[in-house]
Amino acid sequence: MFMGAISRDGLDIARRSREIVREKIRKVLGKDIDKYSEWEMKIIERVVHATADVEYAKLIRFKNHPIEKGIEGVKSNCPMVVDVEMVKVGIRYNNIVSFINDKKVYEIAKEEGITRAAAAMRIAKSYIHGGIVIVGNAPTALFEVVRLIEEEEVEPRLVIGVPVGFVKASESKKLLHSIDVPFITTEGPKGGTPVAVSIANGIVELSRGKMV
Amino acid sequence: MFMGAISRDGLDIARRSREIVREKIRKVLGKDIDKYSEWEMKIIERVVHATADVEYAKLIRFKNHPIEKGIEGVKSNCPMVVDVEMVKVGIRYNNIVSFINDKKVYEIAKEEGITRAAAAMRIAKSYIHGGIVIVGNAPTALFEVVRLIEEEEVEPRLVIGVPVGFVKASESKKLLHSIDVPFITTEGPKGGTPVAVSIANGIVELSRGKMV
Repeated sequence: MFMGAISRDGLDIARRSREIVREKIRKVLGKDIDKYSEWEMKIIERVVHATADVEYAKLIRFKNHPIEKGIEGVKSNCPMVVDVEMVKVGIRYNNIVSFINDKKVYEIAKEEGITRAAAAMRIAKSYIHGGIVIVGNAPTALFEVVRLIEEEEVEPRLVIGVPVGFVKASESKKLLHSIDVPFITTEGPKGGTPVAVSIANGIVELSRGKMV
Repeated sequence: MFMGAISRDGLDIARRSREIVREKIRKVLGKDIDKYSEWEMKIIERVVHATADVEYAKLIRFKNHPIEKGIEGVKSNCPMVVDVEMVKVGIRYNNIVSFINDKKVYEIAKEEGITRAAAAMRIAKSYIHGGIVIVGNAPTALFEVVRLIEEEEVEPRLVIGVPVGFVKASESKKLLHSIDVPFITTEGPKGGTPVAVSIANGIVELSRGKMV
């Protein structure tokens, strides 16, 4: 089983894609490739594979041993808190938490005048503490995660913060760099569901010693 | 309600993003912008909004009145057949069909030596006929859709064919251009779940006269 492929056709596509992806990343990163660990390269490869966008090789940032922390979390079956259902169904992990469609989220969002995505993170506080939190879409969710860490002493093992968009996404990701937490993020407006999902699945597979 | 936003914060982000997206598309397309209809521009805007990647403005192709056909389909509540669960949960529509996790799909894929994604399309044949079919990930699913159209007289109202990847995705999308079916696609390796989802949601909203 390789990236979900069970047929020879699927396996063949996945393998050839892996080779092409590696070659493209090598070209884009040049000498900078030596700055990345083997595990980091595997995560970068997954993101480029999932998006067919080699620019991500230059955009992804790792800080405070995030992959190691993520693997520890997965091995202890810690919760993964995600921002939206699309991210949830894409990750192959059995302890994923999402409150975006919770009735309470609507109420809190309306009462407090915050987005549903932010309200969903506020509700998920006790799962984020000691868990892995993954924001693939709404910058407001990532702002709320940072607030929880700074103001409410919430300590996630790992933040995968890759919201997408031209408004506030870059800012929310810059904020991550200012706090002392293990994180993986992308510079600039790019990010999104496939980026979040491929990083998370990469960590899950590394924790099982499975990723080739 | 605008792109799912219920709070002032969310609305504000969505509106400012829309303005930035329009400006970026204008710069990238230049005079070519006149080649697109108002509806096509709305779909392009959605995709660029969802991916924060303005290159899509140059990559999206519309052929044989696909938006009109899609709107007709949505108004008659025709099935939308999708390739993976991530695409399914992202689309706001109440008649979505997906066989990727069906037990039969595993069996057919193993027996016939095809991918699960292709097997899922084969099983969905009767839904694809008269329905809207959406491939956001596996090129092999799109190859199978083209085969069903060419060899088994299956007639979808619309094919949204935006698989992603460096192997076979471009080829599968080129094939679409060779058959007589309404379709929306992207040139080259780029595509994926957010592209598929934003095109589909754009058509759903246009059919309800909702999209600003």
